[in-house]
Amino acid sequence: MIEEYICKYIEKAKRNDKGSTGRLLTYLESSPSQAFKVLNIILRNNVGKAHVIGFTGIPGSGKSTLISKLIHPYIKDNYKIAVIAIDPTSPLSRGAFLGDRVRMQEHSLNPNVFIRSVSTRGLKGGLSFAGVAMVELFDYLGYDKIFIETVGVGQAETDIMNIAHTVVVATMPGVGDEIQILKAGVMEIADIYVLNKSDKEESLKTFEYLNFIIESGEIGSRIGWKPRLLKTSALMGQGIQELRKAIEEHLEYCTSQGYFNHKINLRRKTLVKLFLEKTLLDKLNEEFEELKSMNVEDFNSQLDILRKKIEYFLREFDKYV
Amino acid sequence: MIEEYICKYIEKAKRNDKGSTGRLLTYLESSPSQAFKVLNIILRNNVGKAHVIGFTGIPGSGKSTLISKLIHPYIKDNYKIAVIAIDPTSPLSRGAFLGDRVRMQEHSLNPNVFIRSVSTRGLKGGLSFAGVAMVELFDYLGYDKIFIETVGVGQAETDIMNIAHTVVVATMPGVGDEIQILKAGVMEIADIYVLNKSDKEESLKTFEYLNFIIESGEIGSRIGWKPRLLKTSALMGQGIQELRKAIEEHLEYCTSQGYFNHKINLRRKTLVKLFLEKTLLDKLNEEFEELKSMNVEDFNSQLDILRKKIEYFLREFDKYV
Repeated sequence: MIEEYICKYIEKAKRNDKGSTGRLLTYLESSPSQAFKVLNIILRNNVGKAHVIGFTGIPGSGKSTLISKLIHPYIKDNYKIAVIAIDPTSPLSRGAFLGDRVRMQEHSLNPNVFIRSVSTRGLKGGLSFAGVAMVELFDYLGYDKIFIETVGVGQAETDIMNIAHTVVVATMPGVGDEIQILKAGVMEIADIYVLNKSDKEESLKTFEYLNFIIESGEIGSRIGWKPRLLKTSALMGQGIQELRKAIEEHLEYCTSQGYFNHKINLRRKTLVKLFLEKTLLDKLNEEFEELKSMNVEDFNSQLDILRKKIEYFLREFDKYV
Repeated sequence: MIEEYICKYIEKAKRNDKGSTGRLLTYLESSPSQAFKVLNIILRNNVGKAHVIGFTGIPGSGKSTLISKLIHPYIKDNYKIAVIAIDPTSPLSRGAFLGDRVRMQEHSLNPNVFIRSVSTRGLKGGLSFAGVAMVELFDYLGYDKIFIETVGVGQAETDIMNIAHTVVVATMPGVGDEIQILKAGVMEIADIYVLNKSDKEESLKTFEYLNFIIESGEIGSRIGWKPRLLKTSALMGQGIQELRKAIEEHLEYCTSQGYFNHKINLRRKTLVKLFLEKTLLDKLNEEFEELKSMNVEDFNSQLDILRKKIEYFLREFDKYV
């Protein structure tokens, strides 16, 4: 039985066997019903201890490099670190870490570091079910810090708020249009803003602009926390310590305000929603393949066929999962 | 009644009243039930005449500028042109057209050109229902060429195949990693490859690499059409005529093989699927908002609550649309 395998892998993963952890992650990424079996075990007794940190921002803002630099000091201090990359444009997702490739490979050999990219093939934008399920697994396995990298466009930006305790939004100098994107969506969700690549020329102007927005109180302070604004140059290794400090201060604030557990609760509700969403979309795509070969031309009849199949599927859902 | 308004707008839009066209597009973008009312009218008698051309490719490959340059000669030849931008990273979506901003504004004043970007706020990646519904509307209104710009990551790349008669994939020189993305997904779907920014240094190497892939027969020829490979420099205005020529040759090929109408059929089936998908996801998000405030902790119970609500919703679906 698959359940036996899952239990075996969980036992081994708990003893830090990376191969077993990898297999469990693959279960979470495969069919919803397999993922469900893993979740049913790991969610039963886990209160949730890991600090989950979301990194978002436009492609090119250097999120991957920031994360790469940031985990160094944590590793030195014996933290267990997981990195989940859900951004299809991320160098991380492509197994490369810019100039940092070699160092990241060293990281992967470290028993206290696990780096995993989530397949975005067929992923409908937003945060994937598998990504959130992976957070639960890493949390269950005793990882202290879980970093999630998502791209800052579309749905993901709001989803990350439901998942991460601390949201870091990265931007870079001199990208006028991009700042408008940030303003339109990502800006409201950050606990910490990072102006990366701040060694660049136009840095000061962008910094002042961001500072103005934050000081004007237009954004932030959902929970009484005033968003921080930091300058970094990830490639130069500048501002990394300050970023870590801000992240830890935000964690302290969250914990003191009872916000830490509230977020875990919200994350698990999100997991439920994404699970149902994925099963529904998978089923719909399956039925669509059949519809394509059917000889029905009329919009309403086609809709009726699909609708009834999905309705039936939901009634039979319990047998499926 | 809303149906009366819709009929009025349709009549006016047919007489080329852009304001009315804009309102109909807004209906298509708002609630699924409003969109359904518009579709019920326009799908009834429309056989489908417009040539639909999908443009996809990584951000930065210059899709928007390519489209902008490409529509010039079509406009001169009195074609009616619609452009739909579904790419959230597209300058088009942000109302700007790189250095071409002024010229595009001129386009918008032209009675034979309609440019519309689809809101990607909350959009789950892939091709949106609204985008495909807009294709149907423009087709119904007698537009000759409909360009759709999507970003070449995630789901959109495969969706576009179901929508567009002709798929153009844009890439640029010297982006090794990006080519891997292309290879992994977007490469298989193109009827025409465009190596844009081919005035750049690394151009020849990338061109030869792309050519090798195409010549090796690894990709393409889904319908016996051998993918074309073209060099352009959209900013310099180079290769645009050749691109138009290739697009028209592909159209001819499609028509001669009976593939043109097959694609319209497939597009409408896709529309049905996306319609159901959107209504389901909207409903799920609505229920999620309620779930967030509920005091249920257990994964299975939460899942059961959501599942039953969606099941009930589907049973009541006919009243809803």
